[in-house]
Amino acid sequence: MRAVGNRPTIADIAKRVGVSPGAVSFALNGRPGVSEQTRARILEVAREMNWRPHRAARALGGAQAGVVGLVLARDPRTLGSEQFYTQILYGMQDMLSAHSSAVQMQLVRDTTAEISLYRHWASEHRVDGLVLVDLQLDDPRIAVVRELGLPAVTLGLPGEPGQLPSVWADDAEAMTTIVDYLAALDHRRIAHVAGPPVYQHTARRAAALRAQVTERGLHAGESVPTDFSDAQGAAATRALLSRAERPTAIVYDSDLMAAAGLGVALEMGIEVPRQLSIVSFDDSVLTRIVHPALTCLSRDTHALGAQVATTLLEAIADASFRESVRTETPHLVVRGSTARPLSSR
Amino acid sequence: MRAVGNRPTIADIAKRVGVSPGAVSFALNGRPGVSEQTRARILEVAREMNWRPHRAARALGGAQAGVVGLVLARDPRTLGSEQFYTQILYGMQDMLSAHSSAVQMQLVRDTTAEISLYRHWASEHRVDGLVLVDLQLDDPRIAVVRELGLPAVTLGLPGEPGQLPSVWADDAEAMTTIVDYLAALDHRRIAHVAGPPVYQHTARRAAALRAQVTERGLHAGESVPTDFSDAQGAAATRALLSRAERPTAIVYDSDLMAAAGLGVALEMGIEVPRQLSIVSFDDSVLTRIVHPALTCLSRDTHALGAQVATTLLEAIADASFRESVRTETPHLVVRGSTARPLSSR
Repeated sequence: MRAVGNRPTIADIAKRVGVSPGAVSFALNGRPGVSEQTRARILEVAREMNWRPHRAARALGGAQAGVVGLVLARDPRTLGSEQFYTQILYGMQDMLSAHSSAVQMQLVRDTTAEISLYRHWASEHRVDGLVLVDLQLDDPRIAVVRELGLPAVTLGLPGEPGQLPSVWADDAEAMTTIVDYLAALDHRRIAHVAGPPVYQHTARRAAALRAQVTERGLHAGESVPTDFSDAQGAAATRALLSRAERPTAIVYDSDLMAAAGLGVALEMGIEVPRQLSIVSFDDSVLTRIVHPALTCLSRDTHALGAQVATTLLEAIADASFRESVRTETPHLVVRGSTARPLSSR
Repeated sequence: MRAVGNRPTIADIAKRVGVSPGAVSFALNGRPGVSEQTRARILEVAREMNWRPHRAARALGGAQAGVVGLVLARDPRTLGSEQFYTQILYGMQDMLSAHSSAVQMQLVRDTTAEISLYRHWASEHRVDGLVLVDLQLDDPRIAVVRELGLPAVTLGLPGEPGQLPSVWADDAEAMTTIVDYLAALDHRRIAHVAGPPVYQHTARRAAALRAQVTERGLHAGESVPTDFSDAQGAAATRALLSRAERPTAIVYDSDLMAAAGLGVALEMGIEVPRQLSIVSFDDSVLTRIVHPALTCLSRDTHALGAQVATTLLEAIADASFRESVRTETPHLVVRGSTARPLSSR
């Protein structure tokens, strides 16, 4: 599915005209979103460069499904991240509805079921494209999606750049932002309640924590893996807080586990933030309604969803499209759950 | 779309054979789920009764979309009930996957957009059937769905019985369970932070509270309407707790608002449960991770989703199907947020 020889891509045309690849994609596909003047110029350059839509994209042209797919593989017992994906869905839909398309979300139990669903969708032309989320190390979905010829965008950076187009934010930089702040408050013992080690973002965050801790000469920054459930988040917190030398700050990979961790601190009589600071990697209504409200990383999830949709539209229009779109690194929103540790006051 | 004349329905055959309507539907549609012996007996009785599949169902037979639709109309600012619907989706999918079907969930902003989507789906045969949720008083979707001839099941009882098949639980009885318990604890001043008045379940719960309060001679049981957001749930709680004679117990129509209400009590220095008891109408991970954990109504949402799917399969197989399936009334799970009020100890 890669570009063969010198076939110009949408990105090449965009560079020549001096517009965004999205604008080229809209113009070439007769969609609204660009001025008539720009459209004429884009079509002229495309002709000059002898641009041809990829065969798969052309075949699709006549019979678009009008739907893109987003599949979440979740054990029903470990739900909790729905709100993040609900916002992603809204962002995608707001962008797609202008292009007469919509998002179909489906839940499955595991990656095997997810792959079966993609094969089914491909055989029946049920979707025009896919968004792959929760990227894994050596993700088996990527080869399948490429084999099936389904246009797809990954939310998160795939292991090998260029495998599929992606929309991503820098997880390592995000973790560094958190450690910077906690270290400035004089925290010396920072722990991490992480997601399953199979996820790329978990691995990136844990590595970033270890690097930061080493660089600053802090105590070993331990990452405790969990299945993302509130139960395992609570158990990991209980274990960390039961140690002789307990952490003064814990960073959680999800809002649900951070809220569960706050519950354990209350249960054990450990005051937040005086004796324990808590930071969540995700923002959501959950982080706002608990007391104290949780310091967290925040980002415009709706805009992220819109970016995913734009990138997927380009991948659908041009099968050789392989851009990685880096979005803003989530920024720290400080609320009541973080402070200088008691020992250093 | 109603049954005309003496045409036997699936329910008639089920009664004659002594099996569930679901079993008849499976047998008549050649689906797995009934023994060969039962299938043979059902087909025999169907022949005897001169049963004919409805024309619409027959027309559909050859070209099923293999997908049923579930649309949530939500203002993105008032999200929070995703977890309930995620469990409904899982329950539906576990049932539908045995019938080579799946659920497509889509989010829209309002009922107008929801109706447009149904028209679009009907014109392109995108779905085999629909589940309508969040039923409104004089719900405009019911007439549209019937006009479009789309098989549909309502989750909740529609205003007029027999309009569409439905799966429902008794909201009035559920509210009575709560008031029974609070009154037994000696609460005399019970308030209700409700959802939008346009929803049927909100209206039923508010009416049940008023009836109970009158019957028991308690203080006026006020229902404060909200848009279901945590912000309005918090604001309503703040208003109720700022009164000279504040309630000693508040019942919330959602887990999200109950958790937000707990936050307001903490913010105002009002102890839960000593000075204020809190009950949530919904159970979820949210009610478990806050401190104190919230007393709530609970039910098997997964089983409810499976029941919705079974009923929808019957409606798809038999366009004259109009049963209302009553499911268990949610039961009270008592946790740390309810106790005898301080004044009565």
